[in-house]
Amino acid sequence: MPADVVEAKAYLDSSKVLVDRWLESYLPADHLEPRSLHQAIRYSVMAGGKRLRPILALATHEYCGGDIEGIDRPIHFAASALEMVHTYSLIHDDLPCMDDDDLRRGMPTCHIKFGEAVAVLAGDALHDIAFGLMARAGSTRAVEELAVAIGTEGMLGGQMADIEAEGHEVSRDEIIEIHRRKTGALIRCSVRVGAILAGADQPMIERLTEYGEKIGLAFQIIDDILDIEGDQKLLGKKVGSDSKKEKATYPGVVGIEQARQDAALLINEAVAVFDKYEENRLKHLAKYIAQRKH
Amino acid sequence: MPADVVEAKAYLDSSKVLVDRWLESYLPADHLEPRSLHQAIRYSVMAGGKRLRPILALATHEYCGGDIEGIDRPIHFAASALEMVHTYSLIHDDLPCMDDDDLRRGMPTCHIKFGEAVAVLAGDALHDIAFGLMARAGSTRAVEELAVAIGTEGMLGGQMADIEAEGHEVSRDEIIEIHRRKTGALIRCSVRVGAILAGADQPMIERLTEYGEKIGLAFQIIDDILDIEGDQKLLGKKVGSDSKKEKATYPGVVGIEQARQDAALLINEAVAVFDKYEENRLKHLAKYIAQRKH
Repeated sequence: MPADVVEAKAYLDSSKVLVDRWLESYLPADHLEPRSLHQAIRYSVMAGGKRLRPILALATHEYCGGDIEGIDRPIHFAASALEMVHTYSLIHDDLPCMDDDDLRRGMPTCHIKFGEAVAVLAGDALHDIAFGLMARAGSTRAVEELAVAIGTEGMLGGQMADIEAEGHEVSRDEIIEIHRRKTGALIRCSVRVGAILAGADQPMIERLTEYGEKIGLAFQIIDDILDIEGDQKLLGKKVGSDSKKEKATYPGVVGIEQARQDAALLINEAVAVFDKYEENRLKHLAKYIAQRKH
Repeated sequence: MPADVVEAKAYLDSSKVLVDRWLESYLPADHLEPRSLHQAIRYSVMAGGKRLRPILALATHEYCGGDIEGIDRPIHFAASALEMVHTYSLIHDDLPCMDDDDLRRGMPTCHIKFGEAVAVLAGDALHDIAFGLMARAGSTRAVEELAVAIGTEGMLGGQMADIEAEGHEVSRDEIIEIHRRKTGALIRCSVRVGAILAGADQPMIERLTEYGEKIGLAFQIIDDILDIEGDQKLLGKKVGSDSKKEKATYPGVVGIEQARQDAALLINEAVAVFDKYEENRLKHLAKYIAQRKH
């Protein structure tokens, strides 16, 4: 493994510990009423996951001169909010009326474990807690960024397009558009919010936005590839589920070899957003994404 | 009809026109993609409704010296957000895995009209758009107020307790707690946000909070009574559905006569929050709620 990917991996591991600690402290305690709801929320959020979105927000925040040390920093609230929004979207995506998935991160999905009504409400609750936390970060701009990223122009629009595309032929442009919205928008938002809360100037925010867009799309293309040839044990979910559900996927449209090349190109473009001779963590994280196995 | 109730009715009617105009302009256009999602959102929000929550925010805002005239005022964003949140909660409450209702405001519910997947996403989208609008009002405090009011301590907690209470005996204290959360919290929040955005001081906010809590609980008790003896045509939904679903209701616990008396007492207490000789719109609105037929 190249040295920069090793560095990224170590950073991801140590940051995950921090993010998990913040999530633990910002989620409602599961002995408080309504207990079943709080248990379902904690079960879903603490089931694991790479915490990629909050970690991208942290790394960008630090890159822009922000400080992540201390207690109850705005960036801690924001990073936790990003992961909670991601989890809310997974809980609702997994519902029987949506993707109808039984397994997530190697464990039964929320509705399998707690029933459908609780799963709908647990997703709603995480959605809500996330916005409360983002507001606690003190920036209405950050709240608006989040709302746009996960709304009908972004994540929800992508989810809707994804459902509508099932069983249909889609073009390369169409699948890129679906991926940009469904997965890309929140990753882009994570990077932007990290920069905004560090007080970055507009040219910097735009440069980082480009970085976020490239890695966001690459991330989902690689996700599609892993669904074809990944290791079920590492992934914590069944492989081959996209094709079984006749989901539109990037390799399904352009072929797996072309998909691999396009993802690599996107990662190179993301790295090229920065100065050629500048070594930095965001570059390393991009390279990590290029070779991730889960 | 007493003169103050007539005044309240006229105010509700004229304010509803304003709120509908704002909602119309802040909702995504239904010719934009994802069209089916935008259509479902507009269908649900524009199906009607009293717009009580936004109107309470407006009336409180004016009471505290705020100005509601003009275009794109913070209070317009906030009022619209409150109605969207209310609609999101209705869409998700109506789902088959929740209350399984077919009829709402005299029309097929969202999932009956557009399917379950679209209904889940339309609720999610309204939840999201509402937070974006509340942030546009420029106050992170208002966003936090909303998040707490509709979270697991508030509306969602009430919804969960409501489901768990189905088919069980509950005490008067328990049903009050369910109603306080499920319906009361958002009504209380509407009043508070109206005051906060007008720059009201803390003693004023606390006095208005008490008013909001009283009318919020009275509103839901009257809702329960109307479900027993209301006019289905006026209500736009089936009567008797609470008892059919073995829902915990206030008259179910204390009897319908006692429920009527308790609602009247709460309204008197809400009115008594203000000076005895002070005539104002919030008093009128409280009295309107006491005698509402739908």
